[in-house]
Order: sequence, then structure tokens, then C-alpha cells
Amino acid sequence: MHLGVESAYDKKTSIMKIIKTINEIRKQVSSAKSSGMRVGFVPTMGALHAGHLSLIQAAQKACDFVVVSIFVNPTQFGAGEDLDKYPRVLELDAAKCESLGVDVIFAPQVSEMYPEKFESWVDVDGEITQSLCGKSRPGHFRGVTTVCAKLFNIVLPDIAFFGQKDAQQLAVIKKMVSDLNMLLSIEACPIVREESGLAMSSRNDYLSDIQRADAAIIYQSLLSCEELFISGERCSNVLKSKITSMIATVDYARVDYIEIVDPGTLEPVEIVEDKALIAVAIEFGPARLIDNIILSLNNV
Amino acid sequence: MHLGVESAYDKKTSIMKIIKTINEIRKQVSSAKSSGMRVGFVPTMGALHAGHLSLIQAAQKACDFVVVSIFVNPTQFGAGEDLDKYPRVLELDAAKCESLGVDVIFAPQVSEMYPEKFESWVDVDGEITQSLCGKSRPGHFRGVTTVCAKLFNIVLPDIAFFGQKDAQQLAVIKKMVSDLNMLLSIEACPIVREESGLAMSSRNDYLSDIQRADAAIIYQSLLSCEELFISGERCSNVLKSKITSMIATVDYARVDYIEIVDPGTLEPVEIVEDKALIAVAIEFGPARLIDNIILSLNNV
Repeated sequence: MHLGVESAYDKKTSIMKIIKTINEIRKQVSSAKSSGMRVGFVPTMGALHAGHLSLIQAAQKACDFVVVSIFVNPTQFGAGEDLDKYPRVLELDAAKCESLGVDVIFAPQVSEMYPEKFESWVDVDGEITQSLCGKSRPGHFRGVTTVCAKLFNIVLPDIAFFGQKDAQQLAVIKKMVSDLNMLLSIEACPIVREESGLAMSSRNDYLSDIQRADAAIIYQSLLSCEELFISGERCSNVLKSKITSMIATVDYARVDYIEIVDPGTLEPVEIVEDKALIAVAIEFGPARLIDNIILSLNNV
Repeated sequence: MHLGVESAYDKKTSIMKIIKTINEIRKQVSSAKSSGMRVGFVPTMGALHAGHLSLIQAAQKACDFVVVSIFVNPTQFGAGEDLDKYPRVLELDAAKCESLGVDVIFAPQVSEMYPEKFESWVDVDGEITQSLCGKSRPGHFRGVTTVCAKLFNIVLPDIAFFGQKDAQQLAVIKKMVSDLNMLLSIEACPIVREESGLAMSSRNDYLSDIQRADAAIIYQSLLSCEELFISGERCSNVLKSKITSMIATVDYARVDYIEIVDPGTLEPVEIVEDKALIAVAIEFGPARLIDNIILSLNNV
């Protein structure tokens, strides 16, 4: 059997690698590419749940070589946010990735990603980053776009996979890729939910059992809003007030925002003509939870 | 003779192409790369002079396939600057490129590079963009880094060639490439000068014959400053005042800045220990002219 670099790849027998340096991940990807493999990339902050795993499965389906990055990116956390307590469980994550047949985990060090005197940033301006989460998390999307630009430049994937749960992040990344002519496709994957309907999130683990059960109200309110829409309601204010009143039944839940916007530009929509995104962020005790649903006349 | 894509390239018989769309340049470069060619890139705003031609020659030497972009980038011009009158002479430029054996000119349309609702930018923060030209041209480097990031993503060169004349631009681009992990090398080429010593610039054409002759004082002042340095002077203020007094002999010349800085970070240097960049910008009638020289103890 010939074991040259180009023929040594055999998905069935290959062992997942955990790579911590930029040079090494570049070598691995370059070697896969030179064998004609299509590279799929799932950028994560770790603490992988079923939502992430669905992204990995989508990547497996569309690509020959799958890279998952695990990097708790400090620049997308604001002062007073949960950077320090954000869960870091690389061994557990690695086991999940390996069982799904991931080829490489890329888990870089903060000191290599952001060396001293790091000063270059990618900014997406306008409503798309300033509305919704951008209002209460100034600088968040600058951190997200910058780390994604870096990771895309390092991994050079054919396709990167993002969850629809972070609808604003998805819209911002698509805008960045298009405006800056980055040579990759962005594929959006549907929200994965717990049995109660609560959208999967690494931050759900901050909740007590009671809070976690109560938090199902978020998705229920989105579904009720969709029902109203299906029954003919088109006015955003009326649709939003349905959600507000349902969230209010949990006395400690605090609404950060409830907005109805264009799914691409995130500009506010007052009357839902054909398609709109309802996005919410709710402070639920120790966790800030986001969720969304797309209203579309096609589904009516 | 087999004429498959991979073998059809023959530098000696190929005809230079002028390409105006992103899709088409991507195809050309991708085809060259799949033949194993090393891609060199010279980004320009056209109005090519001997300085640009030296970049092209450096690219020819180091690479197998040379792309020259010609694009007067609107986002790097400020209000009241010379965007409208900047020379646009594509036919002349094309003839020069062809005679040097350039493979492809990429001359995109503004409407494709900056479509409606373009909102993504690359910013390099700090002294490196805020000092020197950054002070009098706010937003200039945001335009430069953004268009270079776009062009690098479109052309995907192995090496991009920049002139040392735009020393700050060179430092900023190197910083961006390093911080954002862009996969290309930046090669700096020496300043090319007119016979009088005046640094080559497309903006020299704005000068009258008399102004052009007078403008030789800029390089003479840099050389005199270097002589002072060689004779032992290390104090930046003394070195700078030599330049100031020589520029003052041309009564209509107005100093924008005369600075002595670290060549990498562009932070001011008060005592020249080993290596420093002296950079100047002088309003010379209708043209704002820049020039620089590197002081180094190695040369003493």
C-alpha cells in the first residue's frame, strides 16, 4: 500500500487530531485539499450541545474533511459578561467530535490568536450589527467578525456552518463574506431544541432546573406569535405584544428585546408583508437567552 | 499537442488579458494555480510610473503568473481630495503592463467592488494608522486596508508587492496581514526616483515644470538629514529641523508632517538608537507629496 501524503487519507481509519497551532492546522488542511477533499468548518466556542452536533453532521454530509474549532473568543465578550465562567470542557467536546467522525479539532491559544499589539479588526457597520444584540452588547459583533475572518483565513474552508439560532450572527457573517469577497460559502442550519422547545445553548447550563423549565415560555411565545400571524395578523406591534405578555408570566424574566425584522438586513419591519424574522433576547436569571423564528407567507 | 487547462499555459505565447469582473479574475487565477503557478500581485490605482513597473518586475522575478490591479479606490479618498482628477489612463497602463509580460490586468468596476449597502470594513487601529498621513487623511487607511483585503481575497496571490514610498501603507498592510492571518507574503520594493531625486508618484503630474524641479528639495533634505545622522547626530528634533529648514527654502511648500518613527509600529522615536524611518509629507502647490528614508546604523 502506497502511503504518500495524497493517498494516506482514509476517512474510515483516520484518527481525530486535536491541533493547537495555526501552522499545524494549515498543514493538515492543505494536505487534505491537495488530496482533492472539500473542507467543511464548524466554528464553535466549545461546550458542544446537540445544536453544534447538527452543524457537524451537516458538514460531514457536504464535505470530505471536517474541522471544528473550539475557541472561547475573548473579543466578543463585553465587560461584565460571562467570559470567565463560560464552560471550557475540551475533553468532553473532543469525545463528541470523535464519535461523529470529525477529522480535526482546532483549539488555538488566546496568545496566538491575539498576540500583544493585535490591532486589526473587521467591522460590519449599520443596522445589521447595531440592532438587536448589538444594542446591549456593544463591540460583540466586532469580536465575532474579527475572529471568524481570522479563522476563515487560517482554515480556508469551502463551507462554514452556522446555526440559525444566532440569527444576527449569521446575517452579519454572510454580509462580511459577501462584502469582503471571502471565498467560502456560509451554510445555515436549523435551530435544535430541547424537548421543552427551549433552543439549545451552552448558556442553558447556567439555569436551575426550575428556570430551565420556565424558559420553555420563550419558544411557546414565538409559536403563539406565529399562530397569530397564520390567522392573519400582520402588524408587528400586535405580534410582539403577544410575546411580551407571555414572557411576563415568568416574573423574573426580563426582556432585552423583542423585534420583528428583515432576515437579511435586520431592518425593522412594521407590517409583515411576506417574510420576517422575530428575534428575542430574554434575561432569564443567570442566562441571557436568545431565540427566533421566521414568519413566512409560504408556510401559511 | 495536448491543450487541457493545466497544460495550456505557455508564458511565452500567452496574451495579456484585461479582466473587469471578479468571477473572471477568479477563474484565471484558479486556472494558473491549478497548473502549479506561483501568483504575484501588484495592486495599483493605475497611472503607472517607473515605481509601479519596478514592482511588476519584482513580481515577474518571484512568480510565474502576475496580476496587476488597476482600481482608483474611492474609499481611500477623503472629502475634498483628488478622487475626481486622479489620472485614469487604462490604455496607456495596459501597454506598459503588456510590454513587461504581465499576465492579467484586473480593472474592476466601482459598482462591483462597492455594491449598494456595502458595510464591511477592515480597520487597523492605533498609532500605525493614526500618525503621519492618518492625521491629515482620516479614513484613508480604512479605505486602503478594506480594498486590499478585498483584492487579496479575490486574487488570492502568493505574494503581493508594495512600494517602500508609501511606507505607512506598507506597515499597515503588513500589520493587517499578520493580525488577520491572511495567507500571503508582502514584499516591499525600494523607492524609484526621477533623475532629480524626486520620488516617483502619479501625483507628480499635477506639478508644473518649475514645481517639479523645486520638489527635488524633498529628497535632498532627507539625504542631508542622513548625512547629519552619519556624522553622529541622534536627536530626532535636530534631525527633523534640518529638513524643516531646507523645505522652507521653497516659499510655497507647506509641511504636513516631518516625523522620525519606528519603521514597523510607526511610533515616534526621540533618539535614533539603531534604525528609524524619516517620513515626510509636503503640500507642494497642487500635489501633496510623500517621501521617506530609513536611517540605520548598519549603513553608517
